[in-house]
Amino acid sequence: MSEAFAAVDVIIAKRDQRELSDEQIDWVIDAYTRGVVAEEQMSALAMAVLLNGMTRREIARWTGAMIASGERMDFSGLGRPTADKHSTGGVGDKITLPLAPLVATFGIAVPQLSGRGLGHTGGTLDKLEAIPGWRASLTTEEMLGQLRDVGAVVCAAGSGLAPADRKLYALRDVTGTVECIPLIASSIMSKKIAEGTGVLVLDVKVGSGAFMKTADAARELARTMVELGTDAGVHTVALLTDMSTPLGLTAGNALEVRESVEVLAGGGPPDVVELTLALAREMLAGAGLPDVDPAPALADGRAMDTWKRMIAAQGGDPDAALPVAREQHVVVAPADGVLVELDALKVGVAAWRLGAGRARKEDAVQAGAGIELHVKPGVDVRAGEPLLALHTDTPATFEAALRDLDGAWVIAAEGARPPERPLVIDRIAR
Amino acid sequence: MSEAFAAVDVIIAKRDQRELSDEQIDWVIDAYTRGVVAEEQMSALAMAVLLNGMTRREIARWTGAMIASGERMDFSGLGRPTADKHSTGGVGDKITLPLAPLVATFGIAVPQLSGRGLGHTGGTLDKLEAIPGWRASLTTEEMLGQLRDVGAVVCAAGSGLAPADRKLYALRDVTGTVECIPLIASSIMSKKIAEGTGVLVLDVKVGSGAFMKTADAARELARTMVELGTDAGVHTVALLTDMSTPLGLTAGNALEVRESVEVLAGGGPPDVVELTLALAREMLAGAGLPDVDPAPALADGRAMDTWKRMIAAQGGDPDAALPVAREQHVVVAPADGVLVELDALKVGVAAWRLGAGRARKEDAVQAGAGIELHVKPGVDVRAGEPLLALHTDTPATFEAALRDLDGAWVIAAEGARPPERPLVIDRIAR
Repeated sequence: MSEAFAAVDVIIAKRDQRELSDEQIDWVIDAYTRGVVAEEQMSALAMAVLLNGMTRREIARWTGAMIASGERMDFSGLGRPTADKHSTGGVGDKITLPLAPLVATFGIAVPQLSGRGLGHTGGTLDKLEAIPGWRASLTTEEMLGQLRDVGAVVCAAGSGLAPADRKLYALRDVTGTVECIPLIASSIMSKKIAEGTGVLVLDVKVGSGAFMKTADAARELARTMVELGTDAGVHTVALLTDMSTPLGLTAGNALEVRESVEVLAGGGPPDVVELTLALAREMLAGAGLPDVDPAPALADGRAMDTWKRMIAAQGGDPDAALPVAREQHVVVAPADGVLVELDALKVGVAAWRLGAGRARKEDAVQAGAGIELHVKPGVDVRAGEPLLALHTDTPATFEAALRDLDGAWVIAAEGARPPERPLVIDRIAR
Repeated sequence: MSEAFAAVDVIIAKRDQRELSDEQIDWVIDAYTRGVVAEEQMSALAMAVLLNGMTRREIARWTGAMIASGERMDFSGLGRPTADKHSTGGVGDKITLPLAPLVATFGIAVPQLSGRGLGHTGGTLDKLEAIPGWRASLTTEEMLGQLRDVGAVVCAAGSGLAPADRKLYALRDVTGTVECIPLIASSIMSKKIAEGTGVLVLDVKVGSGAFMKTADAARELARTMVELGTDAGVHTVALLTDMSTPLGLTAGNALEVRESVEVLAGGGPPDVVELTLALAREMLAGAGLPDVDPAPALADGRAMDTWKRMIAAQGGDPDAALPVAREQHVVVAPADGVLVELDALKVGVAAWRLGAGRARKEDAVQAGAGIELHVKPGVDVRAGEPLLALHTDTPATFEAALRDLDGAWVIAAEGARPPERPLVIDRIAR
């Protein structure tokens, strides 16, 4: 027993609302990575952190210790600015798909290390895997080569980046310790800082379909992450964006790829276009191009061209037909009126139930499953008109998905208006 | 996944300060015993319970679920009342040794399922194992036979009683979740109720050498346990007793046996005699003998006779010489004055360091090691007179033990008086 600390003393310190020292934090993360601090000890510590909080200093040190647990990437050899976007996760959030090629079109390298979905929020890699042939796993050399040749890459993070976070994230998932701003912020930022991007734009979701249900909580998370990134030398900006209703008209893997391609073709739902452009402007400005308007690159096909090269570079066929679910079930409006609410969480859970998401890491997802919206809040509907369609290969899930959707929409009398909800709620920078 | 609940939902409920339902509690304890709820999940739940508390209803249900995880004993075939005593643990607390035979002398069956020491508080089984030949493990049949023949038995609890508690206790020990009244109360009471005693007297220690440092915390623990016992049909009374200074003049295994035998011979330190008699009166009253004075049975040798038969029945030789430590170190008073403080925790830690206790469950203890006090608070001392003696087989531990004792005593000017501290602070019954 030549360890610097005993795990139980670190747990008790946080349990009793004491601030952890730099040495305690460095030790506990390193010892956890080495297996000296046991899973049951780290989960008790995580619960104590969730309930008693951490100071900014503790969060910064915790993040640094997680970065130090693994390797760091280096894009300086590319000779151009790098910009990355991270979303805290929502329903129908396919923004990475049009955004990465759009920004790359302007000479910025966009290294998007992404994840898979768990629970009701989708994962970018799951979406792209709906494209025949596309593969998520690249070596570091392949990734650098693609950044050099195409400018944009969306791939799985290697296991060498912040292994402490990888271990801790899996533990938090099964121990009720996910919803904790210090642990969320350090988890996201340790990976992004270790990845080595120069510019980071954070899309912090607020609302029923997001981890953060209130703007105050989202703002606190955004501020924490912006400080962590800035202190680590990354140009970091956060947008708080609405996730009370799904983004765009689709939630599901192939459905969202199709919608993203519509945006890259100059069309697509206005909210998806608006958010793609808002995030692109932040990435461009952070990379030294504050006056560039990215919108024309969607209209004139330049972004689409980069998209096709990006997909092809990872083995995908950008022109292949996308998978379609075997069964559909259409839900119609029960009455005339105005759709004033369409709840993101209920739609997300229903899409997950239909097969678009996974309950456990080892589950497979259905490429074609999900939900297609025919209307969004603010639109007039008439009784009998389609509200939304459920897609799945496993029609036995329709019944449960319809139960999940119970109360998901509110149709008010004609002339009513939905609550005013700007898509971009706030911008946080230091 | 046909389980009634998901562990993470139960953890989140308690994390978010919701009351757990009966069904959630029954399930989580049963599933933990079966290994379906993982150690890291139970430790997160334990931390949430520690920080957010449990209602009386939750504690009662939790206790019931732990009892239901194993077997229950039944002493009804003995045809006489049963009474047991439980101490929350202190320094020099050898009361079980004279108490069990004393109470049995009056025709009460005393089934003392006891434990081993961990940390600075000693364990009754460790003390009795200092007696040559004595063994702690008995079958249920041997235990019942001894209760019938001798009336008193002190032995190790079988693994069948409250196995959920056994698992949870080991987990709490390494995850910083020991100091939690709901978990302490349910741990103690699940074992005592499963044991099946008719009368239970709780000795809840208060002060530096106890788990409960304040009378308020001890009173809360005592009330919780009295309610749990009473509701389960056990006649339960608690005494709050002082543990700011060691009980008696010895802390250590063979040293405490020697002192217990002095009490059984009608002598011994006044505080040990006082507490033995106070607890004996409660046990006798609970068993239907409220007017019996136990004191004469110490003076006239009846309790000593029962003691010898109790020890012999478990293979021990009550007349054999007790082990003595190979080395002694005497600490003398640095000045004339009055000893006004002698800290229980520091004495307990020093005795543990000398070899009387263990740091890990698998460690062995030294039978002869410990501390012998020459004076107690309130006594006049003169410079150069012995204050206490350290006993050990491993003299390399003297230096660390003396460091542990740093500041353990306060000698005030002649005429000073120590703080007034009654030995029995309060009595809690419903």
